[in-house]
Amino acid sequence: MYMDLVVLRLGHRPERDKRVTTHVGLVGRALGAKGMLLASDDRGIERSIKEVTKQWGGNFFVKTGVNWREELKRWKQEGGKVCHLTMYGENILDVIGEIRAEAKKENARLMIVVGAEKVPYEVFEAADWNVAVGNQPHSEIAALALFLDYLHEGRELKAVFEHAELHILPKRRGKEVIVTRKE
Amino acid sequence: MYMDLVVLRLGHRPERDKRVTTHVGLVGRALGAKGMLLASDDRGIERSIKEVTKQWGGNFFVKTGVNWREELKRWKQEGGKVCHLTMYGENILDVIGEIRAEAKKENARLMIVVGAEKVPYEVFEAADWNVAVGNQPHSEIAALALFLDYLHEGRELKAVFEHAELHILPKRRGKEVIVTRKE
Repeated sequence: MYMDLVVLRLGHRPERDKRVTTHVGLVGRALGAKGMLLASDDRGIERSIKEVTKQWGGNFFVKTGVNWREELKRWKQEGGKVCHLTMYGENILDVIGEIRAEAKKENARLMIVVGAEKVPYEVFEAADWNVAVGNQPHSEIAALALFLDYLHEGRELKAVFEHAELHILPKRRGKEVIVTRKE
Repeated sequence: MYMDLVVLRLGHRPERDKRVTTHVGLVGRALGAKGMLLASDDRGIERSIKEVTKQWGGNFFVKTGVNWREELKRWKQEGGKVCHLTMYGENILDVIGEIRAEAKKENARLMIVVGAEKVPYEVFEAADWNVAVGNQPHSEIAALALFLDYLHEGRELKAVFEHAELHILPKRRGKEVIVTRKE
């Protein structure tokens, strides 16, 4: 498993993308990423994801207002790998084996880049892999979710989050939530 | 494979959910559903998904302004099954085998219900399965994508769409699109 698995969200426009970027962050958290870097200043997103983490546990971080060029450059200088999700890339079914093999190395670090509509060409060049989660237009939220699921081979779907206030008891019908208030 | 696989989107609020519901539709189309029923009147969504289908192929339909209670009732009367995606349900890893077995029956029909924030309790009751794509809060877009991928066991990620104007040639770097203009 990647020791360090971070989502870099590009091209977020504060008005238009508020909910989509929030979903990107929540998917990252729920499916095993360590945190999200947001190349835009939007504290509302940071707040709503932190609120979810407070209630549902884990240590997911959100860092807003990052300079994505510098983050990418530093990540690579420190030996991290970069995977850019794009419908133009190689089909995930063809490359996920290679990415999983890389993930098993010691101190493996992976940054997953998720864009909005237009992604600068230098991102395609900087990436170790340009991965298409299907070569059809759909959704960066769906692409991230499927990528994380293929990477972790489903194990993330039963992950237990530490120091959570809320736990769901899975049920065939209805809702059951166990509440553990922290002092 | 389900002969008939339809997404029912509940609780769409035209202003707030425009982009999220569009992503729900595009994910349905890209990952093997036949169409989307939208329990709200929002022609803008219908138009943008139809535009994608015109360019990228296939026969995905969008029907807006449906009465979801009647759609659910008729679907079940006609022998169709209903699967509601909710974080409160049974974990997908525990029930997907049962759903796949059902899908292999002759004339199998499955409706996948995807809600927004609050889903009426009668939906939990009407569903044959309440399925949690992980029991953590994240995104209905991600939940639908993962559900369809588990249902189809990845085959949908290489599906070919009929009479498409645009085709992507998957590439390790860069973008390549083949354009076939219809007369």
